[in-house]
Amino acid sequence: MSASGLAASAAGVTLGIDVGGTKVLGVALDGASDAVVAEVKVAAPGRHARQRAEEDVPGALVETLAEVAGRLAQALPAGTVGLDVVGVGLPGLVDDHGVLRFAPNLPAGAGVPVGEQLARRLGGARVVVDNDATCAALAEWLLGAARDLSDMVMVTLGTGIGGGVVAGGRVVRGANGFAAEIGHMVVDPSGPLCPCGKRGCWERYASGSGLGRLARDAAHAGRLDAVVRAAGGDPEAVRGEHVTAAAAAGDPEAGAVLDDLGWWLALGLANLAAVLDPAAFVLGGGLSEHLELVLGPARRAFASLLVDREYRPEIEIRPAELGERAGAIGAALAARGESRHHAGGR
Amino acid sequence: MSASGLAASAAGVTLGIDVGGTKVLGVALDGASDAVVAEVKVAAPGRHARQRAEEDVPGALVETLAEVAGRLAQALPAGTVGLDVVGVGLPGLVDDHGVLRFAPNLPAGAGVPVGEQLARRLGGARVVVDNDATCAALAEWLLGAARDLSDMVMVTLGTGIGGGVVAGGRVVRGANGFAAEIGHMVVDPSGPLCPCGKRGCWERYASGSGLGRLARDAAHAGRLDAVVRAAGGDPEAVRGEHVTAAAAAGDPEAGAVLDDLGWWLALGLANLAAVLDPAAFVLGGGLSEHLELVLGPARRAFASLLVDREYRPEIEIRPAELGERAGAIGAALAARGESRHHAGGR
Repeated sequence: MSASGLAASAAGVTLGIDVGGTKVLGVALDGASDAVVAEVKVAAPGRHARQRAEEDVPGALVETLAEVAGRLAQALPAGTVGLDVVGVGLPGLVDDHGVLRFAPNLPAGAGVPVGEQLARRLGGARVVVDNDATCAALAEWLLGAARDLSDMVMVTLGTGIGGGVVAGGRVVRGANGFAAEIGHMVVDPSGPLCPCGKRGCWERYASGSGLGRLARDAAHAGRLDAVVRAAGGDPEAVRGEHVTAAAAAGDPEAGAVLDDLGWWLALGLANLAAVLDPAAFVLGGGLSEHLELVLGPARRAFASLLVDREYRPEIEIRPAELGERAGAIGAALAARGESRHHAGGR
Repeated sequence: MSASGLAASAAGVTLGIDVGGTKVLGVALDGASDAVVAEVKVAAPGRHARQRAEEDVPGALVETLAEVAGRLAQALPAGTVGLDVVGVGLPGLVDDHGVLRFAPNLPAGAGVPVGEQLARRLGGARVVVDNDATCAALAEWLLGAARDLSDMVMVTLGTGIGGGVVAGGRVVRGANGFAAEIGHMVVDPSGPLCPCGKRGCWERYASGSGLGRLARDAAHAGRLDAVVRAAGGDPEAVRGEHVTAAAAAGDPEAGAVLDDLGWWLALGLANLAAVLDPAAFVLGGGLSEHLELVLGPARRAFASLLVDREYRPEIEIRPAELGERAGAIGAALAARGESRHHAGGR
């Protein structure tokens, strides 16, 4: 748990809270400077919900959100304006009514009208709820790596792949708010099974879990000897972090697996480019900490996979700039104006 | 060549001309009723441009467009307003300056500033140039099968696959006007080579040429006996039309090939749905004449391939309504207001 406070301007603040698989991160975003003037981080509730069904996980989620909002308020000077406007980014599909519809990393949260409940819990605050990857895209677009662009795609490389699409200066949400589920584009119908039920989804290849799978395949094929030793001798014990560590240390076999990951990443980006023609992709998420190992191979492969590449300007692939705060900052931005769902209010 | 004239209203007309691989079709769209009040169809110039390099194909294209505009004007009552506003749909990438950048079915047209040249040829008309599939999408969205929707994807199934995307009530054009090149999403990286240089592009499977390829594969594998006989006994002579004819006559082996086509069609639609979450897809283009043979299998496969299908409303798959006129009507609509590039003008 951490809390830090800076002086908020007279323009007031907006609160943004991002609910991740392991942590809940809240920020207070200053209305004049767009600076983060307070930050709070706590453990996510309900992570073991499948094991402890008797627990009130939805209630715990709303309680945690209220706690984070309260701690942010305490970290700010008395009389700070805007504490009653709260954006929340949730890890799943959020429908037009602010209800979480599908949350693989927060299973007990499905069906919960988080916005409505939090608005009531906070005594009539205005709460805007949105998908966490959409929030991150909004933040990187308005305040981060793509702030000069009106057409961009944010790609969040974590355990899976999330995303957000901005086209013609507007966030693309789709008919039901479910757009940008880009990790579930099928890129190889005879590929490995995805928890979603399909085969060969992009996130089976180009995500953190995809890296682990590519590495275990390489290990079983007798490549990656040093990595297997580092993982204790069992190819099945190889994880993505073993590969990134070995590649960073110069292991060419580990580097080859990251080249492979870069190729699959580029394939999905090229597919998105064919559909959306963005000026740039912004890559964020946990895997992007090791982006320097993947970006070179990904850029080379992308140049060869992009359709009509001789006839169009270059499409950039940029690292995200806002790090783990992107979702919370984007949630605050969503609450401030790029809003979709409003609950409560006065 | 054909020309038909109806009475235009006092609101005047806008001309729209669609340049296809084999024909150029022009319409005059009435400003009040949105009815087509005149129509002209001529053969496309420059089809054999590779063979006859000495010919001035770009000049012939502009000349043909001017001829169609002139014939439309002749078919209308004297004094009709709006004949100096012309939309043109071109079969290729059209950049922000109205220049055709890449036109596989009109190779000699590449690099030609069609809008500027036609505006000059017509004595200062306002000419708006756009991609033909984008025009067709605009027409089906504003006046056709998706006129009730603000999020839709038009899929044009011809020799290849073209498309147009509408998101949040706006046409998605991309950073450089190259969006919706949906036929070149890779759906199987170990699949057949595409003329674009990549392997396994969607249009290698779910288009008219894809149907021919799927059928020849089936014929070589010893299926499709009746179809091979109808094609003269050589599996390599099998074309898509042999399969659709046999399937319409009840041949189960031909039906199985169309089921296969429907599955690949659904796979690409499911990928687009993951990215864009449209309320509906609209299927047009030459292959859609046989849509009744494909729509059933495609809808069944789509239901199984759509991500998060338990959590979202149904996404419809609708046949296009405007037929071969869609591109020309959309070009007129683009010229009327949904415009992107203006050349000339007074």
